[in-house]
Amino acid sequence: MNDKHIVSSFDAELEQIQAHIMKMGGLVEEAILDASKSLKNRDEELAEQVRANDKAIDALEQRVNDEAFKLIALRSPTAVDLRVALSVMKVAGNLERIGDYAKNMAKRTSVLVHMTPVEGARSALRRMAREVQLMLKDALDAYIQRDAELARDILERDRDIDQMYNALFREFLTFMMEDPRYITPCMHLHFIAKNTERMGDHVTSIAEQVIYLVTGALPDENRPREDHYRAELHLSD
Amino acid sequence: MNDKHIVSSFDAELEQIQAHIMKMGGLVEEAILDASKSLKNRDEELAEQVRANDKAIDALEQRVNDEAFKLIALRSPTAVDLRVALSVMKVAGNLERIGDYAKNMAKRTSVLVHMTPVEGARSALRRMAREVQLMLKDALDAYIQRDAELARDILERDRDIDQMYNALFREFLTFMMEDPRYITPCMHLHFIAKNTERMGDHVTSIAEQVIYLVTGALPDENRPREDHYRAELHLSD
Repeated sequence: MNDKHIVSSFDAELEQIQAHIMKMGGLVEEAILDASKSLKNRDEELAEQVRANDKAIDALEQRVNDEAFKLIALRSPTAVDLRVALSVMKVAGNLERIGDYAKNMAKRTSVLVHMTPVEGARSALRRMAREVQLMLKDALDAYIQRDAELARDILERDRDIDQMYNALFREFLTFMMEDPRYITPCMHLHFIAKNTERMGDHVTSIAEQVIYLVTGALPDENRPREDHYRAELHLSD
Repeated sequence: MNDKHIVSSFDAELEQIQAHIMKMGGLVEEAILDASKSLKNRDEELAEQVRANDKAIDALEQRVNDEAFKLIALRSPTAVDLRVALSVMKVAGNLERIGDYAKNMAKRTSVLVHMTPVEGARSALRRMAREVQLMLKDALDAYIQRDAELARDILERDRDIDQMYNALFREFLTFMMEDPRYITPCMHLHFIAKNTERMGDHVTSIAEQVIYLVTGALPDENRPREDHYRAELHLSD
């Protein structure tokens, strides 16, 4: 058994796992788009479909974890290879969480269709979700191509998502104060906005993994991860 | 070099990492208690302290990750040992997230002290946080002692947390509908309640790790992880 043979087996198996990651990513992107579409169009059937499709995402995460575990156990990778093998588990975990948030958006849609519509908010939420889906697409491209520059760009774009969220938070407060009938639907819409912002955080976390894999260090540790709370908090000072 | 020697080095190093986990757990328990105490007593100084202390939790997580990485790279564990080495990273990740939620509770406390007090809610939130802290203590004991029975008990107790959250959700809606001055503080209190419920989910995730380590399988995959949304959703049907 020579070293070269071991190395290429590792690479071949890793490629297989990364193919699952890409498939998972595709399903999660679809879930984000469909969930936000069902919300915008008050489409219960589509919302139901998003909820059902989440099982396939969970199954793929399990598969990625099992195969990455076997890869580490059998090939005993060290240094960079081990880092890569661990990163697939993390990325799969991030994707699963984003899928969960999309499922939750679909669940809330099924409830919201029976309530007073809050005009404007659903379109803004759809734009925000669309932006997160595009970020996710780029984050996965950056991951596969080990493109740290593209990954850094995503960290910047996450700030836009945070701003969109803050604008929506203000809007919901205004609606609720104007008319108590808006209180319950706005609580749900607010959750959806917050969860979409959290999807952005998980996309950012994938981008951070890319930077870690390429440079060996996480991006600036002092990055204010909770900056997105700031506007929300100041608002109420 | 004989096998026995390798095994005991692994165990000694693992024990060292688990000591960090326990230290981290102690700090996170303290953060939960102090954050909820600062909320209840409208104590800005204590809230500020919780926010400052979060750095030590983050540093410990980094340390656990680094040492677990080295352990896997140098000792090439397989089967159960590898599972354990990976689990310390996951548990550290869960603890870090719980610490983040406690920090966020402290941040919101600093804002809430300047708003109309919402009577009753702060005490209920403190009880809920106290319950989560006790669950966390038991989850970490279960982890160190590999006690699957205690871990299963925690899965049950998480349902109580979900119920406490649902009761609070209803209460906040009522407050907001009664008087618009309650809308902004209730939005923050609602976040705190939701984040406390999410702390419970992370404690549950630690308990699930224990069950996985002991039995080799995760608890019933069909466990309705999002059951806690149900009451909240039905409420608004």
